[in-house]
Amino acid sequence: SRMPGKKVCIVGSGNWGSSIAKIIGSNVKASNRFHPEVNLWVYEETVDGRLLSHIINTQHENVKYLPGHKLPRNVRALPDLVEAVRGTELIVFVVPHQFIGGLCEQMKGHVKEGAIGISLVKGLDEGPDGIRLISDIIREKLHMDVSVLMGANIASEVAADKFCESTVGARTLANGLIFKELLQTPNFRITVVEESDTVELCGALKNIVAVGAGFCDGLGFGDNTKAAVIRLGLMEMVAFAKMFCRGPVSSDTFLESCGVADLVTTCYGGRNRKVAEAFVRTSKNISELEEEMLNGQKLQGPQTSAEIYKLLQKKNLVKEFPLFSAIYQICFQGRDVQDFITCLQNHPEHM
Amino acid sequence: SRMPGKKVCIVGSGNWGSSIAKIIGSNVKASNRFHPEVNLWVYEETVDGRLLSHIINTQHENVKYLPGHKLPRNVRALPDLVEAVRGTELIVFVVPHQFIGGLCEQMKGHVKEGAIGISLVKGLDEGPDGIRLISDIIREKLHMDVSVLMGANIASEVAADKFCESTVGARTLANGLIFKELLQTPNFRITVVEESDTVELCGALKNIVAVGAGFCDGLGFGDNTKAAVIRLGLMEMVAFAKMFCRGPVSSDTFLESCGVADLVTTCYGGRNRKVAEAFVRTSKNISELEEEMLNGQKLQGPQTSAEIYKLLQKKNLVKEFPLFSAIYQICFQGRDVQDFITCLQNHPEHM
Repeated sequence: SRMPGKKVCIVGSGNWGSSIAKIIGSNVKASNRFHPEVNLWVYEETVDGRLLSHIINTQHENVKYLPGHKLPRNVRALPDLVEAVRGTELIVFVVPHQFIGGLCEQMKGHVKEGAIGISLVKGLDEGPDGIRLISDIIREKLHMDVSVLMGANIASEVAADKFCESTVGARTLANGLIFKELLQTPNFRITVVEESDTVELCGALKNIVAVGAGFCDGLGFGDNTKAAVIRLGLMEMVAFAKMFCRGPVSSDTFLESCGVADLVTTCYGGRNRKVAEAFVRTSKNISELEEEMLNGQKLQGPQTSAEIYKLLQKKNLVKEFPLFSAIYQICFQGRDVQDFITCLQNHPEHM
Repeated sequence: SRMPGKKVCIVGSGNWGSSIAKIIGSNVKASNRFHPEVNLWVYEETVDGRLLSHIINTQHENVKYLPGHKLPRNVRALPDLVEAVRGTELIVFVVPHQFIGGLCEQMKGHVKEGAIGISLVKGLDEGPDGIRLISDIIREKLHMDVSVLMGANIASEVAADKFCESTVGARTLANGLIFKELLQTPNFRITVVEESDTVELCGALKNIVAVGAGFCDGLGFGDNTKAAVIRLGLMEMVAFAKMFCRGPVSSDTFLESCGVADLVTTCYGGRNRKVAEAFVRTSKNISELEEEMLNGQKLQGPQTSAEIYKLLQKKNLVKEFPLFSAIYQICFQGRDVQDFITCLQNHPEHM
């Protein structure tokens, strides 16, 4: 006589998706608000001659993207997206950002009425006004309420159950709280805030700042200078969010895990910082370094800086965002990296 | 016919005081708002058989506390505090916190009417309600308006003119702006905020959080966990400031250099972090480590945690500040450091 619990579909099974599947598979068993089985959409590929979905369903391990960690047995891998989504009410999006549009197209007409989503996708898409939020693409294509989750969350540490925090940004608080119940564990602690757009922007903009932190390391500056770069970057993140977001933007949101914590982790560790340091110390350009250090994968920071710069130019706001702008110009327009310090010295924050 | 410029006295000539003297000596020459000579009170001592004040006045270098950096010739060292302060209108306090009370007693009755001060002193004093701000001691004893300056400012980097930021907290904005003009350079950038107490508290409380960051490193946790410790520590700093300060406390102030930036620098570098890591990895207690690693100097983090803990107990607020409290209990009451993670897991921030 109890209401049937809501069924979850996880769209994406890379490193982060598989880590989250581990948590969700375990959490749904503990609450009667959720259906005890979880669908995991897998982009099908073969690993040593076997289908990845079969490996996950028999060995209960994503041997390609999260080796060494068992997934709960109630997580069922499905290579067909329409089948995976059918009848589910909670949809977790966790794919590289360039795939989101195409996947939503495939899902159109197959999402259950009243289903809600959460995006764990980091990055931005190009849009008519320069940039578009990933969550907005999902909202527009699937007409559903979408929350986001961002934070200082390195997938491997989450999978290893090391303590960390994360932030859910929700347009509808009640929905954010459902996802908190679905995702929180004793070692993965979640705060819900009602500023979805701000939270999502943090996850993209931090990578630009990390490039600046890497320049600073490459130039041999000290801890104070790096702290100043991180902080001025944070100030530009705040200013950008205030300019871009429709709703109110509170400084408190930047004190959440998605803000300060994720920014700091990315500026001390992280590959954006590392490649940017190498950019200063060598004479190679960004795409040569991507080839050499990341097997040709695109680095998010420079790419996001280009999208943001286009928007700033259009709005005639380049001067109000000297750090974001200088990072773009240094990466792609041959501006001297030494100028980076000049732009800090003249930052409008200190006027 | 021009009004004579205001004369500056710097009270204290250690590493930080000497670095600031370098800036002030240069800045007063550039503005007719200031008297072109600066008094520097020196706690007299002998170095290689010569008086330190004589060395500074002849060699223009504080060979003991800031060797290798020339001080401007218009900075005059004076060993007599009353003489140093006489007739000056801008007084910069930069001494270890335990000396402030005694020095103010000596200055009583010798400070010019209308003189204003700024405190660069980090730390807290014990007071009837548990703790007392250093600036409040100066205000009470000398009946003057006092601003504060705090930020991610390692003295050696400031002296070497590496780029950094700092925050002035002012009760009276106009006075804060005078000190900004006195202290800002192209590489030492200042923001003025009207929350003096919050800014001053940041300078003391960050050291407690750094002890927690050191525990985390000692326990071998990863970047995510450390970011969570720093952020939860910041949340307790905000909550403590809201509870303690008379005036309003804004989250924006914690996004200034005195907040996030100084906290991060202290939690990644800094001796509080380092000693706390050693505390976990060895079986030595805090005072043994102070003896061994700091030549017996007191570490500020544990000491401040003890002062704060006393206040929290009195106000029955220990449970609302689990991180601050656990740090005290681990340092001084034999609580198991493993409990530190339990206290993060149950932090009220995630309820």
